[in-house]
Amino acid sequence: MADEQLGNLWREARELSFGTSGQVERLESPPSPLRFLRDFVAANKPCIISRTATLHWPAFARSLWSDDAYLRRVLSGHSVSVHLTPHGRADSLVPLPPAPDGGARGLCFASACVRSMEFPEALSLIYDTGLPSSPVVAYAQQQNDCFRAEYSALAMDVEPHIPWATEALGCLPEAVNLWIGNGRSETSFHKDHYENLYVVVTGEKHFLLLPPTEAHRLYVRSYPAAQYVTTPSSSSSEEMGELKLEVMEPETLVPWCSVDPYPPSPEDVAKQRSRFPLYFEGAKPFECTVKAGEILYLPSMWFHHVSQTPDCNGRTIAINYWYDMVFDIKYAYFNFLVSISSHTSESAGMLCNSSGDVSNISEDSEPESKNHIVNA
Amino acid sequence: MADEQLGNLWREARELSFGTSGQVERLESPPSPLRFLRDFVAANKPCIISRTATLHWPAFARSLWSDDAYLRRVLSGHSVSVHLTPHGRADSLVPLPPAPDGGARGLCFASACVRSMEFPEALSLIYDTGLPSSPVVAYAQQQNDCFRAEYSALAMDVEPHIPWATEALGCLPEAVNLWIGNGRSETSFHKDHYENLYVVVTGEKHFLLLPPTEAHRLYVRSYPAAQYVTTPSSSSSEEMGELKLEVMEPETLVPWCSVDPYPPSPEDVAKQRSRFPLYFEGAKPFECTVKAGEILYLPSMWFHHVSQTPDCNGRTIAINYWYDMVFDIKYAYFNFLVSISSHTSESAGMLCNSSGDVSNISEDSEPESKNHIVNA
Repeated sequence: MADEQLGNLWREARELSFGTSGQVERLESPPSPLRFLRDFVAANKPCIISRTATLHWPAFARSLWSDDAYLRRVLSGHSVSVHLTPHGRADSLVPLPPAPDGGARGLCFASACVRSMEFPEALSLIYDTGLPSSPVVAYAQQQNDCFRAEYSALAMDVEPHIPWATEALGCLPEAVNLWIGNGRSETSFHKDHYENLYVVVTGEKHFLLLPPTEAHRLYVRSYPAAQYVTTPSSSSSEEMGELKLEVMEPETLVPWCSVDPYPPSPEDVAKQRSRFPLYFEGAKPFECTVKAGEILYLPSMWFHHVSQTPDCNGRTIAINYWYDMVFDIKYAYFNFLVSISSHTSESAGMLCNSSGDVSNISEDSEPESKNHIVNA
Repeated sequence: MADEQLGNLWREARELSFGTSGQVERLESPPSPLRFLRDFVAANKPCIISRTATLHWPAFARSLWSDDAYLRRVLSGHSVSVHLTPHGRADSLVPLPPAPDGGARGLCFASACVRSMEFPEALSLIYDTGLPSSPVVAYAQQQNDCFRAEYSALAMDVEPHIPWATEALGCLPEAVNLWIGNGRSETSFHKDHYENLYVVVTGEKHFLLLPPTEAHRLYVRSYPAAQYVTTPSSSSSEEMGELKLEVMEPETLVPWCSVDPYPPSPEDVAKQRSRFPLYFEGAKPFECTVKAGEILYLPSMWFHHVSQTPDCNGRTIAINYWYDMVFDIKYAYFNFLVSISSHTSESAGMLCNSSGDVSNISEDSEPESKNHIVNA
């Protein structure tokens, strides 16, 4: 319906503000609060700050978090949340469990099986499940302020907040989350209602970023929610059995991005390309790798896909600081944008979702509720 | 076409950010640069700062600009630009000159006749033309940095820039303009591509403000450009004769807001109401009066209508600082917004413009050109 206007918006936002190189701007040193606020937050524009910003953190200065013995000792006896999936992709779209009659079925939005276990066990599991042969992938994470709740023993190793961001944004972080995974964990495209300061501590994180202006290119549709559960026979923490996908009852629909930027097989590539032309035929997403010590400013409402490369020990650790976003004119414009249909996006959306329920992307206009599903 | 979506945008931007009271937020003291940037510039939200911000300016501390003798003495021999119109409305829509056959014609966009004269003469003319019986209204103004160009003799009486705004915005003002008028001068709805710090020095200014999200409510349409010229017999500066409206040749079209918020006659009120329901039936514009010493932060892209009440001497003086705006995601969203048609706005637009040329609001996507017609 509004494809020409949408195309102009995508092009203009990149040409005027975000840049046309597909690269994320890099800062050699931490910006002043005013510069950060003016050039990045107000403009809703990402940037990467070099490791000079975190050199003084004990986690880096004394390489504490590269040392497993240190982590095991300090976190001994502490329970942490671990997300278990069969393939490393939590909060992602996977085929629904086979129907009783064996017929083909559509996709669902699958959440991980969340288990609480003592940290040393979790770390071993992360290592063990990094092998391609493992039928399970473990990812220590929980986006509920888990760093301050579960990893408080590590509090002195990092800064409790990012000082120049705190000053710019005028508040302390609402949540601080820790992420410990192997190379198999991957996060599908989604957005968060937070200003995100994302610090990689060991290993590397690879981001694909798409600005909120380009929301239609990700074909957000509603999918039935499902969750991985461990089968009873493998519920002991020592033996990680197979994971089974259970569709939520009663049916719950989750709006999620349909695009998989890295389809696993050539057949999937062809399917994705024909179903989601706005993504695959349009401008490339912004792409960046965040290395140990670097900070990515990931602006609120930007869609992001995240994968990771482990350090020489086989793990990637990151910590991110979520600051409350301001629900201002940009947010209102975004909601207006996604309320406008794209002809291409609409028809392709119908194709991709065989769950029987197709709904266009929609935002809750009540920011207080923050009823979003997040994962990064 | 997108009326429901537009209505949601208008409501949401007010509910989330601008406020629903129709009042402009007032600050008791100048904000810190960070607060100004975070709460107002980034949010594209107006505010009024109390006179504590300007108490120290010599123009106020020593009441210099309330003293005509002082102004006449300091500016003696200085030429200034004066805008002449028959009714005080420059850059506004007026009926086209009668056709040769006497038939009714549509509206045109009329610019003032601009004359350069020595300041004491200009000031007398402003007083003389403040009377309702005067066939001409004089308004000393020129939006080309006229304060620094024509009124440099007054430079020491005010601050060369607004320090907390300069620090927040990271640049000095691009232009500083002075405005000296009587109570008859009025400025029609329009927007500027600048961040505007507007200081009233004597008298009062009354603003109607409409956020950029509500652009459709002003029915921006293209009108043929015209200009007032003095008839040859009255070209001497001593005798201000009648002003004649001349349509520009070759025809030049100017996109302008069609709505007159204060129609002069009951007949005009009825016409305006039926032609522009989105304006007259919707939420009221934000309304504020800026008094001597107060500063209005008028964010870029906000539509504003300005009228004034003179001081006891019969004149209103204001000075405004134009800072470059950032052409970021908000600007791209705005252009997208105005590229989406509203059914109501479209059909009514056809009615109001009898010039034969109807075009929807459109923005130049090349900010460098800044080819806008401005007046405030």
